[in-house]
Amino acid sequence: MLIEPKVLKGFRDFLPNKEIQRKRTIRLLEKTFESFGFDPINTPVLEYRDVLLGKGGGETDKQLYSFKDNGKRDVAMRFDLTVPFARFMAAHLNELILPFKRYHIDKVWRGENTQRGRYREFVQCDFDIVGVDNASADFEILQVMYKSFQSMGISNISFKIAHRGIFNNFLTVINASAKSEEIMRIVDKMGKIGKNKVSDLLGDLIEPGAASKILEFIEPEKSFKDTLKKITSLSGGESEETERLNEIFNSIKKLGMEDLFILDPSITRGLDYYTGIVYETFLNDLPGLGSVCSGGRYNNLASIYTKTELPGVGSSIGLDRLMAGLEELGILDNTKAGTDVIILNISDSTIGNKHFIASKIREADLSCEVYLNNKKIGQQFSYAEKKGIKFAVIYGKEEQESKTVSLKNISTRENYDKISLEKAIKIIKESLEK
Amino acid sequence: MLIEPKVLKGFRDFLPNKEIQRKRTIRLLEKTFESFGFDPINTPVLEYRDVLLGKGGGETDKQLYSFKDNGKRDVAMRFDLTVPFARFMAAHLNELILPFKRYHIDKVWRGENTQRGRYREFVQCDFDIVGVDNASADFEILQVMYKSFQSMGISNISFKIAHRGIFNNFLTVINASAKSEEIMRIVDKMGKIGKNKVSDLLGDLIEPGAASKILEFIEPEKSFKDTLKKITSLSGGESEETERLNEIFNSIKKLGMEDLFILDPSITRGLDYYTGIVYETFLNDLPGLGSVCSGGRYNNLASIYTKTELPGVGSSIGLDRLMAGLEELGILDNTKAGTDVIILNISDSTIGNKHFIASKIREADLSCEVYLNNKKIGQQFSYAEKKGIKFAVIYGKEEQESKTVSLKNISTRENYDKISLEKAIKIIKESLEK
Repeated sequence: MLIEPKVLKGFRDFLPNKEIQRKRTIRLLEKTFESFGFDPINTPVLEYRDVLLGKGGGETDKQLYSFKDNGKRDVAMRFDLTVPFARFMAAHLNELILPFKRYHIDKVWRGENTQRGRYREFVQCDFDIVGVDNASADFEILQVMYKSFQSMGISNISFKIAHRGIFNNFLTVINASAKSEEIMRIVDKMGKIGKNKVSDLLGDLIEPGAASKILEFIEPEKSFKDTLKKITSLSGGESEETERLNEIFNSIKKLGMEDLFILDPSITRGLDYYTGIVYETFLNDLPGLGSVCSGGRYNNLASIYTKTELPGVGSSIGLDRLMAGLEELGILDNTKAGTDVIILNISDSTIGNKHFIASKIREADLSCEVYLNNKKIGQQFSYAEKKGIKFAVIYGKEEQESKTVSLKNISTRENYDKISLEKAIKIIKESLEK
Repeated sequence: MLIEPKVLKGFRDFLPNKEIQRKRTIRLLEKTFESFGFDPINTPVLEYRDVLLGKGGGETDKQLYSFKDNGKRDVAMRFDLTVPFARFMAAHLNELILPFKRYHIDKVWRGENTQRGRYREFVQCDFDIVGVDNASADFEILQVMYKSFQSMGISNISFKIAHRGIFNNFLTVINASAKSEEIMRIVDKMGKIGKNKVSDLLGDLIEPGAASKILEFIEPEKSFKDTLKKITSLSGGESEETERLNEIFNSIKKLGMEDLFILDPSITRGLDYYTGIVYETFLNDLPGLGSVCSGGRYNNLASIYTKTELPGVGSSIGLDRLMAGLEELGILDNTKAGTDVIILNISDSTIGNKHFIASKIREADLSCEVYLNNKKIGQQFSYAEKKGIKFAVIYGKEEQESKTVSLKNISTRENYDKISLEKAIKIIKESLEK
């Protein structure tokens, strides 16, 4: 009896067309991260459950893939790359140079509800700077975000930023800091539920005057500068935090990036974890998609593992959501990265001869495959066309005797009969450069 | 109370130095595979237990990381990339073009005994050709193996090949085919336990005449040709299988690769799975390391999932064993891929100015980081040296006013005071090209 070759709900296979696009995107990101001096690290997929959960509890706990391994240890698959990174920093503190800048692009697992295009296996692209707490590091993360999306050819984008510290100062001013966590969680829903709902929820939680003050605070003004001025004033005047944001804004301006950055005090990122600047990123043509790159500053990355204080700032691109967005927008390069050349299987040539000429073509830095099957020539061309291969080479008996090859441009149908290999390579390269 | 930041036995963190080397190696392999027209695919880490185990049982079963997920499904983490590939082929047969050539480089998990440098989480680099059964495909896998190791700068290497079909023909000739599986498993231990032990074990299993015939059969002769001649004769004369091996050998010769290939009939790869050619790969300087790249031809990849016959041939590089070997041999490039340039943090420059000049340097296709902390200049240089950064740029008030930068070559200590940015980039590029 056959076994059905099915995959688990929320998990996916990627066929070459998609996997090539994903790899291409990941390579662009890696190149961007590395150009800023971020180094890659790697951590295990499986960890001790207690190490991943810490004090644990809540949503994470329920979504965790956890089990007892064959040695009766309680283990779990990582649900993000941040917790393993914190554990990594605590474990290797003596081997690392601070500030430490790392990136990590890898799969994580959450047993989430699979509605609304959410997956149980998905890829996060994290980049963080640990060991320094200043505007220069906060700004660098913003710049890496900007350059990452630029490298992917995405320009119609908004980076929304806010500052949790300024929000907290403001809550102190209006005497609402006792309920700051609940307030931030409500405000964080602004994009999803709208201003009226947020107003209702705030009204249920605190007295009306404070609620309306909060609505005033979180409303962005016309410009970054104006919003900063307003929240500075509402949070009790200039402070370390407003000065930090001002410095960051000056750097954004200096780099000519100000058109894409919006100071939006309603961004709070919900998580208690963040203490300073917070970021979210939206594709302007797909506002419903949600943030494709989010992060912020945290005071103390690894406090559950070490007494050493490790302030940090970082951000994470959700690759799967981003790829879905790019596909919807038609931005993805859909051209199959087919090999450049195929050596056709002509009966009067030995296997060695065909592979030999293919290896010569590869030496010229072209990709080249030998047609491996024993099919009619029409079927060989059909294979080449389906795979997006651009040129076909015939290296039969006559070509071998005259030390030539015959070349065909598969899309234009142009033929070049019995030319030297050097000439064929030149023709192929010139055509590919166009 | 702090949680100890420990990892599970058999699992590892990779710090930047190691991870950069691993990524570098993986990229070389990907480039090689792609140059032959192999496409990447991706499959889930977690699958239905039954789908992975098939009829199951045996060693695999005991080593499997399997558990019930939150939906009470029996799931397991993949223990290799071959079974998921078979499942993938069966699931997507209608969407794929045959012959299908795929590569997949990824982690797999086995709860093995962690002695002898074995890990429970390790990386396999698989490449396979499915949908064709001939010498051209068998040879192409050998060529990809050869080119993969060449791309890594490894030349002192032996590829050992054999043919399971010829072995079977020989066993029929000597009337021992009823015990072929046991015999092959004993013979497969040759490299580990030596000829005498193999002789003893064979003697326990079959009658002495047959055992000594087997010892004669599996002994390689002086040359590929001589060994082929002997096993052809001992297996009952020329056959489809000996002709296949002969064709493969002619192609190896045509490509000038014959020095590295040894026909060694004692290679059987143990697994019943293989039906034709089998391969193993050894670093000549580290014979005890074992095979770093193994594989072979199988008749029917996905028979437990589909009635469609899918003959294939492939091989797999064990990245972790290979990296351990390369490290022992000192072949690995240990130079930390440090950023090319660091912008020092000089107090009379704004954050924006430093990041601005760094972004200009990146535009010239150099990697560049800004020193993010606020430390003394000596500590900044010490950071740069530890990270292997080659050049330091000072962009202070004087430089800004004169529209210049000051440059220092960190290793030679050469200084270039107040030169144009263009000139600085030229000096850096010329130095890096050396």
